[in-house]
Amino acid sequence: MAPVAELTVLGIPGSLRKNAYSTSLLKAAVEVAPEGVRVEIADIHDFPVFNQDLEGSLPEPVRRLKERVRAADAVLFALNEHNYGLSSAEKNVLDWASRPRGDSAWEGKPAGLVSASVGMLGGARAQYELRQSMVFLNMFPINRPEVIVPFAAQKFDDAGRLTDETARKFLHDHLVELTRYTKLLLRRT
Amino acid sequence: MAPVAELTVLGIPGSLRKNAYSTSLLKAAVEVAPEGVRVEIADIHDFPVFNQDLEGSLPEPVRRLKERVRAADAVLFALNEHNYGLSSAEKNVLDWASRPRGDSAWEGKPAGLVSASVGMLGGARAQYELRQSMVFLNMFPINRPEVIVPFAAQKFDDAGRLTDETARKFLHDHLVELTRYTKLLLRRT
Amino acid sequence: MAPVAELTVLGIPGSLRKNAYSTSLLKAAVEVAPEGVRVEIADIHDFPVFNQDLEGSLPEPVRRLKERVRAADAVLFALNEHNYGLSSAEKNVLDWASRPRGDSAWEGKPAGLVSASVGMLGGARAQYELRQSMVFLNMFPINRPEVIVPFAAQKFDDAGRLTDETARKFLHDHLVELTRYTKLLLRRT
Amino acid sequence: MAPVAELTVLGIPGSLRKNAYSTSLLKAAVEVAPEGVRVEIADIHDFPVFNQDLEGSLPEPVRRLKERVRAADAVLFALNEHNYGLSSAEKNVLDWASRPRGDSAWEGKPAGLVSASVGMLGGARAQYELRQSMVFLNMFPINRPEVIVPFAAQKFDDAGRLTDETARKFLHDHLVELTRYTKLLLRRT
Repeated sequence: MAPVAELTVLGIPGSLRKNAYSTSLLKAAVEVAPEGVRVEIADIHDFPVFNQDLEGSLPEPVRRLKERVRAADAVLFALNEHNYGLSSAEKNVLDWASRPRGDSAWEGKPAGLVSASVGMLGGARAQYELRQSMVFLNMFPINRPEVIVPFAAQKFDDAGRLTDETARKFLHDHLVELTRYTKLLLRRT
Repeated sequence: MAPVAELTVLGIPGSLRKNAYSTSLLKAAVEVAPEGVRVEIADIHDFPVFNQDLEGSLPEPVRRLKERVRAADAVLFALNEHNYGLSSAEKNVLDWASRPRGDSAWEGKPAGLVSASVGMLGGARAQYELRQSMVFLNMFPINRPEVIVPFAAQKFDDAGRLTDETARKFLHDHLVELTRYTKLLLRRT
Repeated sequence: MAPVAELTVLGIPGSLRKNAYSTSLLKAAVEVAPEGVRVEIADIHDFPVFNQDLEGSLPEPVRRLKERVRAADAVLFALNEHNYGLSSAEKNVLDWASRPRGDSAWEGKPAGLVSASVGMLGGARAQYELRQSMVFLNMFPINRPEVIVPFAAQKFDDAGRLTDETARKFLHDHLVELTRYTKLLLRRT
Repeated sequence: MAPVAELTVLGIPGSLRKNAYSTSLLKAAVEVAPEGVRVEIADIHDFPVFNQDLEGSLPEPVRRLKERVRAADAVLFALNEHNYGLSSAEKNVLDWASRPRGDSAWEGKPAGLVSASVGMLGGARAQYELRQSMVFLNMFPINRPEVIVPFAAQKFDDAGRLTDETARKFLHDHLVELTRYTKLLLRRT
């Protein structure tokens, strides 16, 4: 019988693309999660582009995501960097689930953030941008270790599995720190 | 007979919301444009959320926007700040029109950027984020005067017209500088 | 007999200028600190400009600052914005006390951050810059309420006392949240 | 007889450390400068930490630097990243030469920016921070190619010479673009 997970971490994908490296990072996170931590992956398909005129009645996929975020103890953002910033898909999910005003699903959540890219900076710029949004959203991101995976084409195999052992180790350590920090903030032991 | 405009500036809205203050800023820009400069406003409705798997065949609204950006001498971004960053709608437009790789419509464009918000920082954070994207996009934003309109509810009337004279003056001066800079970069006189 | 303070918060000034608004903010913080919290103000004079070649033997003022930071339960940065970024004086203090590698005084500290400026953005840009440095320094800044004091000339009297009641209230609330967060991170009650 | 240089570019070091990689980048820039462009290197030693109370009578090293900046057609910042931001030494030089108000030496200057670090991000974060300061300073940085040199210990030899051919090529191309852009802004040919 599988042990009950102490903590649930909801992974938020950063791309709608099939086989996006960022989604592959989340799959790796499921595998390397420390004992007692279950990583799940949210579905971000079928969101319209955010329009404040529509927020009175949230689209069904938004409503579902907000429920899952609320049910989780912490979230783990997997970022794609587009044009030196957050991907449209990720920003869109972030904005929808923060609305309407006073009903943000992100409020007070501990958060991890990881990124991967084919380029040499590994999505780092998107990470700092997301951290700035988290100030407004009152989220609590951990600092270390930062998981930034550059030259992604060399770190994942053809099936999208993260094969780089160093990256897997950092990802594991990131989840360990996220667990520690989440327990502190939630006053659990 | 109306004189032929020397320069065309395409305004890019930052929100899908009817009556968004950022869109109202673009309407004011049309009114306060210096002589010889025509400000037009792009349509950003009906864009799907960016998905790289779809970029082989661009959606029709994206294709139309890219054509208009290319036809313009400069662009003017009107920003809304959501969660201390660019709005999803604006980032989505930015990402779509930059794709596919090697066919970005933004390449080399001179740019102005203005923002408004109901809060005290007037969308300033979104401006610096957009400037960072412009490095990758190889766009050429002007510096001064920055047009940042805080406490927007007091600066526009009920019909959405910018009534604050100081803000109108800054907007005019921003367009004058954008014109000067665009002519330099395009080597026109 | 004065009660023993439960928590000590060390205020880090952002300017060498006599009568800097940022230093005045720290003086106000001393006054509005919640019960059980003592706010002290560090001395940042007589620091040379950081030079890694000199870090083997730290200058005396640096050594003293590091001791005080370590003795404090949390720190409160009072920021001045220069050229849209951290002031030289503040960055210099931040860099010195983080060195040599492996002996940073900032490691793991909970932190508040407040700013004031004569301009309309109140030093906000410097705050986000400092937050980025805190990721590397593994500091834990609170999110809310942000204390950003624009148009400072109207908020302080001639003696440099913060007279604006709204700003004083935000400053108090900032210290309350810093206290709450510090206790969580330190597992005290 | 050496040909007269068409353009002078003043290199601004980012560190007081002997043998800093950023200074080595400037030395490489002298070597790879395109024909007609002379790169010089400024001296940033003996600056006190910026203090607005002292700006009425600028220290002699500040005065000299401001003269050299003004005499140059463009500047080239060589950055060191400290704690995910600009180095204290660089921010200090930037702040001093921008003062007093209304007498900034940086006003309107075209600028290049390059960075190196022993880590994997090569000082990139400091570059985006400097770009934000340039908005206020009304400087005109180029976009491409970005010169970001990570893992610096492998790219320079023991004497501090940049030996990595790819990095040298990017540095050359950066200066070519800076030259092109400077001529446009100065309306020279």
